[in-house]
Amino acid sequence: MDHTPTSIDQLPTPALVVEKSIFDRNVALMAEARPGAALRPHVKAFKSTSLAKQLVDAGHHRFCAATAGEIEGMVRAGLDSDLLLANEIIDYVRLGRLVDGGANITVAVDSEDVLNAVIDGGVRRVLIDVEVGLPRCGCDPEDAGRLAELARAEGLDVRGVMGYEGHLMMVPTQERRAEKVEAAMALLLRAHADVGGDIVSAGGTGTYAVNTWANEIQAGSYCLMDTQYATLEIPFEQALSVLSSVVSVSPKGWAVVDAGLKSFGMDHGNPTWPDGELRFCSDEHATLSVEPGQLRFGDRVRLQTAHVDPTIAKHERMWVVDGSEVIDQWPIDLRHW
Amino acid sequence: MDHTPTSIDQLPTPALVVEKSIFDRNVALMAEARPGAALRPHVKAFKSTSLAKQLVDAGHHRFCAATAGEIEGMVRAGLDSDLLLANEIIDYVRLGRLVDGGANITVAVDSEDVLNAVIDGGVRRVLIDVEVGLPRCGCDPEDAGRLAELARAEGLDVRGVMGYEGHLMMVPTQERRAEKVEAAMALLLRAHADVGGDIVSAGGTGTYAVNTWANEIQAGSYCLMDTQYATLEIPFEQALSVLSSVVSVSPKGWAVVDAGLKSFGMDHGNPTWPDGELRFCSDEHATLSVEPGQLRFGDRVRLQTAHVDPTIAKHERMWVVDGSEVIDQWPIDLRHW
Repeated sequence: MDHTPTSIDQLPTPALVVEKSIFDRNVALMAEARPGAALRPHVKAFKSTSLAKQLVDAGHHRFCAATAGEIEGMVRAGLDSDLLLANEIIDYVRLGRLVDGGANITVAVDSEDVLNAVIDGGVRRVLIDVEVGLPRCGCDPEDAGRLAELARAEGLDVRGVMGYEGHLMMVPTQERRAEKVEAAMALLLRAHADVGGDIVSAGGTGTYAVNTWANEIQAGSYCLMDTQYATLEIPFEQALSVLSSVVSVSPKGWAVVDAGLKSFGMDHGNPTWPDGELRFCSDEHATLSVEPGQLRFGDRVRLQTAHVDPTIAKHERMWVVDGSEVIDQWPIDLRHW
Repeated sequence: MDHTPTSIDQLPTPALVVEKSIFDRNVALMAEARPGAALRPHVKAFKSTSLAKQLVDAGHHRFCAATAGEIEGMVRAGLDSDLLLANEIIDYVRLGRLVDGGANITVAVDSEDVLNAVIDGGVRRVLIDVEVGLPRCGCDPEDAGRLAELARAEGLDVRGVMGYEGHLMMVPTQERRAEKVEAAMALLLRAHADVGGDIVSAGGTGTYAVNTWANEIQAGSYCLMDTQYATLEIPFEQALSVLSSVVSVSPKGWAVVDAGLKSFGMDHGNPTWPDGELRFCSDEHATLSVEPGQLRFGDRVRLQTAHVDPTIAKHERMWVVDGSEVIDQWPIDLRHW
């Protein structure tokens, strides 16, 4: 591109667009509900250190991440005052190097094998990762105390526990979600009683309001939002969309835009076109149902994604807009692994 | 990474892996069925000029693409002896610059609006893009002759027609697929009678064998393949997989590997684990059902993708392997737009 775009009409499409006023409102709402260290924003959702800095401005200084690459990028950006790798990985040597350089990094540990890899890699701070109902990472709550003891015997700093109730994010009502989260957190608190440490880390955008047992919430999607989370009764609104251009219009009642499977995370289903029906996506296109004259070649259309995290990971940058004005761009610099 | 890996055990995971012997067999099979210019490989499937060069070695010199970025990358790599942009886009100025530089670029045109944008952009060669049943780009067959006349009146080189029968790729039997393709191609041939020119371009991996009406086939997935195309009775085998590492094993009967929604195109469903059940994918993880002792922390697991094109687009490179030996890497240099 020759010039920095100042209007969304100048953006090359497909383009990931963030409506700044909505983003700011989402961030402020969460900072009020979970101020400072009560929120540990999860960078996997947005993969951008520029966006993370906005959350620092809102008072959150501790972050969590899912990959070694995300941790490395946060350290490069100087956002390493308290970083948590909130799941297990295979190569802790990459993180040990950063610890040697002075970064404050804590990792989740759910087995002796992982503990040994963490020690070999040179990382010195851990949380015991407890399975609280989601069939993914995490040890049995009964095993957490033993792992903590092993870690402390090796001189590690065991800072507490984490347990991600990811299976409960989409439980339909706040009341039922609260009940189920309470049961999941009972498992985590039982483990915490054995493990000790200051941190009880859990939660996400779906449970931030009802998880009153964790002392830090690992939410990330709340600041950009997607159509799936929008079905919950939470106050955050969709700040993210994919701007596309109409490249073809058929007299048979459809129009084609230049954003498709390679622009959207598709695991939660098709993107949404707020002005009508989106029929299907192809690799680089979406077919929209239109009335005669509704859309013309070159028109701009914003589509909303069903799942923010994998959508973000497909793009190189977010364009930050105020209506039709482009006011900033945030590189998505934490992509890949 | 400090060193170039020579064994798959050294690859950072998740890693996109191409089994070279299978790839070579797929390429040879297609080159026999559709030699030279009878195949116009579609780079959208693999987004790599290194891979494209393998197809040049197999005798194919004409390529097609879906985005301006893919065309630009092919030109940079010197693979521009005959490039077709096989759908409409919004910005033809990017391609006009390449034409000015000597690249041989043809674009698909399905409306007067697009034709005007093509002329304004400085592109001089077109195919008339005809809708043959897929609700996406393409003009009415009855309108093709008029568009060709308009183009020729502006001094453009109208090289023929294209019409993508994408809705027929997965019709279950060769016989039924052949019948339906014949009907779709009848529309394209009717348009061709009005348009003229040497080229009748159509088809894909699903219809390369049964589309005997097109004189060039736009296939790309055949060389790497995915689990969806593998359900058809076509001779190509899966050369592509995502190598992952086991990061967590639960005594409750599952193991977690470090490849998930951000490593796979998910629009055609979950990836496949050939050795057992894949339960679900999370952002960076897949949960596999395992017997006690079946998998341990650090074990390597290859998963197969359901849709090759959007999977490739998520990765920075393909590692080319011969069994456990890494013999080459192909940068995925045609990503983004």
